[in-house]
Amino acid sequence: MGRSLIFQRLVRFIAKDGKTYFGDAILPSSAKDISQATSARLISGDVLGDYTITENVAEISSLLSPLAASQTRTVRCLGLNYANHAKEAGMPIPKSPVLFYKPNTALSGPTDAIPVHAVAQQGTGLDYEGELVIVIGKEALNVSQAEAEEYVLGYAVGNDVSHRDWQQKWGGSQWSLGKCYNGWAPWGPAIVTKKGLPGGSLKGLRISTTVNGHVKQNELLDDMVFGVAYTVSFLSQGVTLLPGDLIFTGTPAGVQLGQHPPVWLTDGDEVKVAVDGIGGICNRMEFINDKNKAHI
Amino acid sequence: MGRSLIFQRLVRFIAKDGKTYFGDAILPSSAKDISQATSARLISGDVLGDYTITENVAEISSLLSPLAASQTRTVRCLGLNYANHAKEAGMPIPKSPVLFYKPNTALSGPTDAIPVHAVAQQGTGLDYEGELVIVIGKEALNVSQAEAEEYVLGYAVGNDVSHRDWQQKWGGSQWSLGKCYNGWAPWGPAIVTKKGLPGGSLKGLRISTTVNGHVKQNELLDDMVFGVAYTVSFLSQGVTLLPGDLIFTGTPAGVQLGQHPPVWLTDGDEVKVAVDGIGGICNRMEFINDKNKAHI
Repeated sequence: MGRSLIFQRLVRFIAKDGKTYFGDAILPSSAKDISQATSARLISGDVLGDYTITENVAEISSLLSPLAASQTRTVRCLGLNYANHAKEAGMPIPKSPVLFYKPNTALSGPTDAIPVHAVAQQGTGLDYEGELVIVIGKEALNVSQAEAEEYVLGYAVGNDVSHRDWQQKWGGSQWSLGKCYNGWAPWGPAIVTKKGLPGGSLKGLRISTTVNGHVKQNELLDDMVFGVAYTVSFLSQGVTLLPGDLIFTGTPAGVQLGQHPPVWLTDGDEVKVAVDGIGGICNRMEFINDKNKAHI
Repeated sequence: MGRSLIFQRLVRFIAKDGKTYFGDAILPSSAKDISQATSARLISGDVLGDYTITENVAEISSLLSPLAASQTRTVRCLGLNYANHAKEAGMPIPKSPVLFYKPNTALSGPTDAIPVHAVAQQGTGLDYEGELVIVIGKEALNVSQAEAEEYVLGYAVGNDVSHRDWQQKWGGSQWSLGKCYNGWAPWGPAIVTKKGLPGGSLKGLRISTTVNGHVKQNELLDDMVFGVAYTVSFLSQGVTLLPGDLIFTGTPAGVQLGQHPPVWLTDGDEVKVAVDGIGGICNRMEFINDKNKAHI
């Protein structure tokens, strides 16, 4: 039987026939991540529940976000979760995870353009935040650190796109306005389960962000202030985390907010975020010419 | 034909037969709001899209939240949206709406108990925030103030239940942790359309909050810093608001945060929030004895 019980790299993709499928990406034996995958074993059923990895293989034409936006109820994000980033932001290292949210209209795929509407072309401060993303697999309420990993479906990478003027100056102390816009939470390219990670764990893996090919962030995931088990346990206290919920786990040092002077993102810039063994997403900033239609 | 094109007071309820229905509440001619409604005309179809108000009437056994939680994608909330509340909170009146979110697991019905898990029994600061809730009826992106009301399905009341220690001291500047718990966004009792409001508008309507029968908040909705049209237009800039999305529009003065000394809510307290002509919700605080199971 060519059937596996648990997928290693869940992808959602458009195949050559123009249809959208879920699949378990097939890697050449020499590949380090799914960037070299050109096909996938199709998955039937509910990828967040009961599913089967079939023996049918389809060629990948283009990758979509690993889940449809409708499969994610809540997008949670952590702030200041790497010591060096807290320092560059001029903030103390937090004693508890700092939580904020994005609406799920912010979700987009690994190669989607990121729309910058007129509202976000005001002022300055368009910035990237490369992040590891945790995908919840089972309902979790009041879980312990010891059992937290059982509730994790897998990992992906994401970009918590941010507008610093809206986040810090005009939002009245709350960061939401600077992070909420349509498409400002691209993620992908796959949900990699523990089984699919190099060595079966996140240990020793690096996260990096490049802008137009220049490296801006490059740090070990081990440097997170609050790791995966702590984060999932903490966020589940008094709150039911649902299958398909995402947790953006915070960004390392190297965002433009911390540069002197900063070079903010602009129209056409390409931002790539990658984690060793998981893969990368690459999104182009796209200014929308809607000043006549916008009401700001 | 006894058929109306647009409902006046959308309720979701359990009927005498034990089943759940959507309906347009039927008021006695003397009634001021739906507290005196005992029955409703059943609605078939999609209450957020194409629906029909039928001539079938059912008796209401108990009211649920007017939409199921799965019909709401995003719960947006405003902070500091009444001048007197900003003052009591020691904060300036904001220049733009201050946005934060609740996860939709926080949504609950008009008479549901509000669970207070071990995590929220720590420290002090359990508080109420009575609020007007806007329900979005149509996809809205970059809409003007002039057209904003077309995107509003109707209005309800809600309680933005808050834990001040988690919100202000332990959450690292972001309010989310103090407002995110399961069931901490009760709302209802109906979605009242413009047609169902006294005089066809919110003008002159008062919002009030009582705790165990004692009035704590009592203010005109006209005192909101940012009104409905401004709020909907503002929040739609660069962001698509979806049918079923809720906007909790901020609380007036009178929360315990502003009292010296505050008398925080405790186990068994009953909080009622009401708006003239819309109706009220009444929720009991229920401490959950899960300290052995919680991991905090």
